Amino acid sequence: MTEKVLSLKKREVVDALLQGRNGSPSDAGHAFAPVNIALCKYWGKRDSELNLPINSSLSISLDRLGAETTVTPIDSPRDRFFLNDLEVDLEDDAGRRVADYLDLLRPSPAARYRVDSHSDVPVAAGIASSASGFAALALALNDLFGWGLERRELSILARLGSGSAARSVYDGFVEWHAGQRADGMDCFAERIDAEWKDLRIALVEISDSPKPIGSRPAMARTVETSRLYSGWPRRADEDIGEIRAAISGRDIERLGAAAESNALAMHATMLDSRPPILYWKPATLAAIEKVWHLRDDGSAVYLTMDAGPNLKLVFEKTTRPQVEAAFPGARIVAPF
Amino acid sequence: MTEKVLSLKKREVVDALLQGRNGSPSDAGHAFAPVNIALCKYWGKRDSELNLPINSSLSISLDRLGAETTVTPIDSPRDRFFLNDLEVDLEDDAGRRVADYLDLLRPSPAARYRVDSHSDVPVAAGIASSASGFAALALALNDLFGWGLERRELSILARLGSGSAARSVYDGFVEWHAGQRADGMDCFAERIDAEWKDLRIALVEISDSPKPIGSRPAMARTVETSRLYSGWPRRADEDIGEIRAAISGRDIERLGAAAESNALAMHATMLDSRPPILYWKPATLAAIEKVWHLRDDGSAVYLTMDAGPNLKLVFEKTTRPQVEAAFPGARIVAPF
Repeated sequence: MTEKVLSLKKREVVDALLQGRNGSPSDAGHAFAPVNIALCKYWGKRDSELNLPINSSLSISLDRLGAETTVTPIDSPRDRFFLNDLEVDLEDDAGRRVADYLDLLRPSPAARYRVDSHSDVPVAAGIASSASGFAALALALNDLFGWGLERRELSILARLGSGSAARSVYDGFVEWHAGQRADGMDCFAERIDAEWKDLRIALVEISDSPKPIGSRPAMARTVETSRLYSGWPRRADEDIGEIRAAISGRDIERLGAAAESNALAMHATMLDSRPPILYWKPATLAAIEKVWHLRDDGSAVYLTMDAGPNLKLVFEKTTRPQVEAAFPGARIVAPF
Repeated sequence: MTEKVLSLKKREVVDALLQGRNGSPSDAGHAFAPVNIALCKYWGKRDSELNLPINSSLSISLDRLGAETTVTPIDSPRDRFFLNDLEVDLEDDAGRRVADYLDLLRPSPAARYRVDSHSDVPVAAGIASSASGFAALALALNDLFGWGLERRELSILARLGSGSAARSVYDGFVEWHAGQRADGMDCFAERIDAEWKDLRIALVEISDSPKPIGSRPAMARTVETSRLYSGWPRRADEDIGEIRAAISGRDIERLGAAAESNALAMHATMLDSRPPILYWKPATLAAIEKVWHLRDDGSAVYLTMDAGPNLKLVFEKTTRPQVEAAFPGARIVAPF
């Protein structure tokens, strides 16, 4: 019963977005969407069906690292979903989420699609592949059906699949506005008009063992049980202001310090949850110490972490040798 | 200038406590005070000179583990302080704190004292020796001068030396009331009338290397810079209620869960500080994981941590074999 009511909310949003969009469908739709790393994190939902966040967030997209997706209409009783050329069972979590998403958008109940997605995202490095995955799927469907949606609308559409996918419809720096409306029509991401050629992001893998808890339930438990969480939304707002100013001044110390502090604060709210949520491994702490030692030695390297044990480092091109020496296995990306 | 004004505040409290207390001094004063482990932590001061806390706290004293102190008047131009038979330089931090404390209480400016303190507290296990140390000193001075102070007054007197010393003037479970008065005369500890024969505390040493930051500046930085800290005082109040109920029902699961959650929340506020405060070592995380695995296996073992990398475990006698097997080096104490 609840399920039905909830999915109606999503459908209403889709109807509003697609009203009057009678484009000309192609034979296939195709799109790429990048992975994004949040510098100010998305943590906590005000609406879990529409993936409306409690706080605004700000991310950097990782250029060509992401998902490339093709959607083709097929004559079949069921959809088919291939990830890196391997078919995913639609009964699996990942498969079901894709099929549910297609349910929202297929023009007739009997229409079926084949989704082919290629992702060079190192899943093991703890990068949310669902963000680039759903962003690429939304963009590919827009291409297939010829809706001609604006980026903001595509951001909303991608969000219905996965919250942070709202940010992956853009490259560069992206701000995702929390908005206030119950239907989320003011809850979309926008590109920040700034390039930072020397900026680098390193992906440091700590562990690829399964997480103790997924990020969706972790977020929900934090909002429900953490008594320190009440301070988070305002903190996130302040952090975004700080990060925006740092971007505008190309100030790596300011950017890094704000991003690192924001990530640690998110993990603090998890630690305060009941039962506690702790994604860190002993090796996570060793890596954190290593980053702080680099800083003590004068290198402007900062860390951020998502709902997992792995680190992402933020620094500038000039510091690359120090990062490579300390983290030989890290993958380094130039976002611009 | 500030220093002088501040020390006047302490002196006023002492004058109020000792007014009309013209006891009969002995040749020597002697007292023992136990170490205490907070189950609901003291974190944040509303007055740093009088050591008035922002939140109430609740602890368990560790029976015969603590400080035994003798104070003797001496004919000397300066005080002398011996810790475990080794003389401590009065210019050292620890020595200066003792001399400053004696300054507050000597009956005439020229009176000098020898303080002999023996402590079997494993300092390396991250136990605040200053709590039992200042409690024993306050009690020994009360014995020496024959003031005949009540325990509540002794709790206030001990607090002037070290905040958590307010709790170490009692054995068993102790609640330290934050109070509201500016002079702190309503900020004292009381014994909770409950015994728990089967309760056990284990001290797990992770590291004896110097801390990156002392607990006093760490506390101050948290209050000044953590934006999640605003949720802490109310959380602590709720945790105390929960812990009190658990003690009254001798409910180890309830006691342990509340104490563990409270400790993690305190560390969460540190993590949220700028710059972040992180006392954990990689081995700390490994020990936390070990405790959680014990619980997954059905053993009611819970952890608490203070401003350091070490763990204290809370459990009942029946679980002792599991704790000893998992933490062979731990020192296990029966508080009652």
